Amino acid sequence: MVVIMKPGTKKEDVNSVVTYVKGMGLDVVLNQGINYTVLGLIGDTGKIDPDKLMLNEHVDRVMRIAEPFKKASRKFHPENTVVKVGDAEIGRDKGFTVIAGPCSVESEAQMTEVANGVKKSGAKLLRGGAYKPRTSPYSFQGLALEGLEILKEAREQTGLPIVTEIMSPALVERFERDVDVIQVGARNMQNFDLLKELGKCSKPILLKRGLSATIEEWLMSAEYILAGGNENVILCERGIRTFETYTRNTLDLSAIPAVKKLSHLPVIVDPSHSAGMSWMVEPLSLAAMAVGADGLIIEVHNCPEKALCDGAQSLNLAQFDSLMKKMTGMGRNIGLNI
Amino acid sequence: MVVIMKPGTKKEDVNSVVTYVKGMGLDVVLNQGINYTVLGLIGDTGKIDPDKLMLNEHVDRVMRIAEPFKKASRKFHPENTVVKVGDAEIGRDKGFTVIAGPCSVESEAQMTEVANGVKKSGAKLLRGGAYKPRTSPYSFQGLALEGLEILKEAREQTGLPIVTEIMSPALVERFERDVDVIQVGARNMQNFDLLKELGKCSKPILLKRGLSATIEEWLMSAEYILAGGNENVILCERGIRTFETYTRNTLDLSAIPAVKKLSHLPVIVDPSHSAGMSWMVEPLSLAAMAVGADGLIIEVHNCPEKALCDGAQSLNLAQFDSLMKKMTGMGRNIGLNI
Amino acid sequence: MVVIMKPGTKKEDVNSVVTYVKGMGLDVVLNQGINYTVLGLIGDTGKIDPDKLMLNEHVDRVMRIAEPFKKASRKFHPENTVVKVGDAEIGRDKGFTVIAGPCSVESEAQMTEVANGVKKSGAKLLRGGAYKPRTSPYSFQGLALEGLEILKEAREQTGLPIVTEIMSPALVERFERDVDVIQVGARNMQNFDLLKELGKCSKPILLKRGLSATIEEWLMSAEYILAGGNENVILCERGIRTFETYTRNTLDLSAIPAVKKLSHLPVIVDPSHSAGMSWMVEPLSLAAMAVGADGLIIEVHNCPEKALCDGAQSLNLAQFDSLMKKMTGMGRNIGLNI
Amino acid sequence: MVVIMKPGTKKEDVNSVVTYVKGMGLDVVLNQGINYTVLGLIGDTGKIDPDKLMLNEHVDRVMRIAEPFKKASRKFHPENTVVKVGDAEIGRDKGFTVIAGPCSVESEAQMTEVANGVKKSGAKLLRGGAYKPRTSPYSFQGLALEGLEILKEAREQTGLPIVTEIMSPALVERFERDVDVIQVGARNMQNFDLLKELGKCSKPILLKRGLSATIEEWLMSAEYILAGGNENVILCERGIRTFETYTRNTLDLSAIPAVKKLSHLPVIVDPSHSAGMSWMVEPLSLAAMAVGADGLIIEVHNCPEKALCDGAQSLNLAQFDSLMKKMTGMGRNIGLNI
Repeated sequence: MVVIMKPGTKKEDVNSVVTYVKGMGLDVVLNQGINYTVLGLIGDTGKIDPDKLMLNEHVDRVMRIAEPFKKASRKFHPENTVVKVGDAEIGRDKGFTVIAGPCSVESEAQMTEVANGVKKSGAKLLRGGAYKPRTSPYSFQGLALEGLEILKEAREQTGLPIVTEIMSPALVERFERDVDVIQVGARNMQNFDLLKELGKCSKPILLKRGLSATIEEWLMSAEYILAGGNENVILCERGIRTFETYTRNTLDLSAIPAVKKLSHLPVIVDPSHSAGMSWMVEPLSLAAMAVGADGLIIEVHNCPEKALCDGAQSLNLAQFDSLMKKMTGMGRNIGLNI
Repeated sequence: MVVIMKPGTKKEDVNSVVTYVKGMGLDVVLNQGINYTVLGLIGDTGKIDPDKLMLNEHVDRVMRIAEPFKKASRKFHPENTVVKVGDAEIGRDKGFTVIAGPCSVESEAQMTEVANGVKKSGAKLLRGGAYKPRTSPYSFQGLALEGLEILKEAREQTGLPIVTEIMSPALVERFERDVDVIQVGARNMQNFDLLKELGKCSKPILLKRGLSATIEEWLMSAEYILAGGNENVILCERGIRTFETYTRNTLDLSAIPAVKKLSHLPVIVDPSHSAGMSWMVEPLSLAAMAVGADGLIIEVHNCPEKALCDGAQSLNLAQFDSLMKKMTGMGRNIGLNI
Repeated sequence: MVVIMKPGTKKEDVNSVVTYVKGMGLDVVLNQGINYTVLGLIGDTGKIDPDKLMLNEHVDRVMRIAEPFKKASRKFHPENTVVKVGDAEIGRDKGFTVIAGPCSVESEAQMTEVANGVKKSGAKLLRGGAYKPRTSPYSFQGLALEGLEILKEAREQTGLPIVTEIMSPALVERFERDVDVIQVGARNMQNFDLLKELGKCSKPILLKRGLSATIEEWLMSAEYILAGGNENVILCERGIRTFETYTRNTLDLSAIPAVKKLSHLPVIVDPSHSAGMSWMVEPLSLAAMAVGADGLIIEVHNCPEKALCDGAQSLNLAQFDSLMKKMTGMGRNIGLNI
Repeated sequence: MVVIMKPGTKKEDVNSVVTYVKGMGLDVVLNQGINYTVLGLIGDTGKIDPDKLMLNEHVDRVMRIAEPFKKASRKFHPENTVVKVGDAEIGRDKGFTVIAGPCSVESEAQMTEVANGVKKSGAKLLRGGAYKPRTSPYSFQGLALEGLEILKEAREQTGLPIVTEIMSPALVERFERDVDVIQVGARNMQNFDLLKELGKCSKPILLKRGLSATIEEWLMSAEYILAGGNENVILCERGIRTFETYTRNTLDLSAIPAVKKLSHLPVIVDPSHSAGMSWMVEPLSLAAMAVGADGLIIEVHNCPEKALCDGAQSLNLAQFDSLMKKMTGMGRNIGLNI
């Protein structure tokens, strides 16, 4: 941590900050510049709250040197994490993992058809929403527990592990028992009570980036889960909110190499929600593969025209199969199994 | 709802959309333009999902005419809502309400001193966080239930109703019993499970705007609570996330007249969290009063230098008293009691 | 400037950076932390390009300590700048200055009526666009030189100094001769060739903030003009681009106290362009006065329904007069002449 | 265009709008809904200013149906435009075009080395800045005319056409004579005086997207050039400004398929400026190729450590060569020459 004193601060006022910091058990190096005096804090700066230093009227700014996340950081965990879910291994070293399925679970017939379809095309996990976060209280809110049962049935038929979204800490126990990967949606990325519960859980967590979350905040939310003892976190970029309105959100593909540099956790991309338009899923999926993502989560529906939610962004089974073939071709070219 | 067909769409393809819409029980008016055919949908358009229309390959765009919120809308509820909490009445017609107190409840001594101080200066409600949403799992997370007890003690001593933040649906019952106004923080504005529980609750809800929530989404979250039967919602603007980094967030004061036009609900301003710097609280508070807000929620601490969280943005008691005097003066000038 | 070396950097690699910096004539203080080595650079850090340091593979990050603007900074110029234009003095110490007039100059009759009207209500300067930056090449582009002549005529009749926008360096000479305050629009805030020409000019410059300019970039654009020798710069906040679409832009009123802290230059507010809706002009104007701005620039038209551009955001003369009365009342209350 | 009247508007007030619109030579279709009356305007709606309709107190909203750009629109020009520059043809149908070179022209020796290097690796055009837009007036501003001469010399030696940035309308004549592709930087995307001059010019224009420009505004700026008679516009995505600070800007790769759908113009990607970090150039370049861009513009320097500007984002010649080999491999896989 670095503390910048205001220009013209008197020696005794600098000293009072030095004394405070030393009192907290840290050491201080003085950098006496022309206009600014800068204090370098040496030791466990986690004990120091930058906000409190800012209250000293002679302090101009406080800058953090160390990253605030530890367990999520590549600095202390250089090798890539691979998350195992049944037979699937999520992590680019093991191949490129595609998760597919409908936005929401609607019926057994629908799930069976989609699950068999996406499996045939090469998907390794099955997604489907039983609990749906909707902006409007008047929209379809999901089949809830009935949806979970249908998902389990689809798993039994296909052998595909299931991924589904959780919205409340009260459901963690049930999800831990019934689900293979528990998804935290963008709107709940900073639902800290939920994250704490998931930290105690044994199942892998798919953590979507919040609509206006910085990469650092996203990794801090992962840190909540890791700090609780659950080391199986898969990050998912799904678009951020910007001024652009043509696409529903702006897919931030630069976040993929950024996360790879900062963290050891696998990171996948959701091209369906970011764009909100099915015809954009293919180019964005290929770009995600090229940019270095560990996989994709794609919305696929047997009949998008009749989907109860988000039909406009869903591929049908034929479109998904065609995309998988293209990705397999591109993967072969760069030595990446799919 | 208005449906715009792609240029050059054939008559039969237009007709198939008309047939679909009529099949849903609505009527259609045809607007045959030079390049575009536009369909005006007449009737209960709530039955139609715009996403599904978008799946028709001949549909170019779908535009909503009606606002998606009903109970929160001023159109169906022209008079201002006034929320009563003990002796306080929140709503500018009744005066300008100031809520004050520390970011987090730290001890009985602290709460007693702050509560007595802000009451003397004219605050009508007391705030204080018992459960704290923190970006980092390693930061102070609040005193939890012990904090609630300290708040109740402070209420008993001062008579000020208490406002505190809830983070989990599991705590709704307890908060309903113990607290006077239940606050939903920015990060939980779209925690829909929590909103649904609060809709069944009898206590007023203070609903903060999410960091990247549009005004419409904010009102839709209010709609969740109203639709559940709880009509006492107070909105709170607390800054939105933008590219500017000088202030922690960008306080969107234009949102106040916007909300006043769209909705009948009272809306207050949080100048402490938006700026993140105590020296900005005074000018932003005066601006909030001038722009038409119904009140303010301000962080006040007996000793900001020693605050366990967010000390940098807290006023001390003398600063708060001075601000209240300025606001009383300005209020007198425009016929607004404080 | 502070240079943070990557964790685990060897002594000799740290030394090579130290040698490089000393070779540039600066001194270095070593801060040896637990995980990080931090170098404090002492001396004229303006000679060091942070980007170049970043190229060293052992450098993790480089942090600037000093602000990049000098002449615009309050640190080296503590007292407020007051800009004189004819009889008007722009700077809150001298009162609150209102600039008013139509978006674009349309005809002599229009300008005469508006100029006389706004003068009567208390405006101190007259605005009007002769050259109009329009998103579409097919929109009305302004009367150009003919517009300038009409503005001069209106000045002669009323004695009000005139403010109008420049879009090209080629017109600087003409504007310097004919105009009292030269406005740089938001879209040209980083048209550096234009700023350089205006730096050589003797007339005051009204510099609008770019739609996505940080406060620091805005002050750096002012620095271009100041560095050229022109010390009369008036800043103007007019809303920034965010995700919110209800208002055309988001008026950033926090920028006013921020600019006041960072700089000695006067800063006014444009409530007309930011909101894009005439009914929002009054509350935003009152808020701007309360937050500490030095004045306002407001669009006023004798007949907004017939305005050739931006009619929807223009006040008519009666609305402007009513607003001026309210602001005079509020100003009296806080000891501010208008 | 669609006009939505406020709920409860009386028949005569609706009629007055109808009369106004018909007076402008358009036809009107009435859509009488339950709460809203909606008017469909039929005819040349270009004559109608939506802002003026908004001034009518009974009008709630006005929605545009047609896109505001014509010449840039794919609707009226379905086939892809290919821009020819010497032997190079920019347009994916003809292959994937890579433009490379240093941020700024520094010396003949530098340009010769870089030009020969990038040519050998497969670049088809040479970039280099002679005029540099810099945030600070104290930063290196480019070699200006001397830089142009060095670029011409490099062209003579290598045969590569040259691309360089223009900042002022006064230089259009000179650039038209000396340069092969004239670049408009992000900060000048809405410098309309410059765009108008370039519309009269015979050389292709490389139009970068503004930092906070929507896709529609970007295409409207292209429309300025096209409307002036210059049909050779190449669009360039270079990152937009968002809240994320890890990368300098957020590269919006979704904009590529969006532009391809809306317009017939070629669109390339600048991975160097968006990220601001050289190690991100490779993954972003591969992603740009995969997402469907027509080419790339990449910063390459013979010695990035000594670059006078933006060294941190420049590849050296070996890195560029390695990237070109990877892209050639990926291109072969998808049938795309490079």
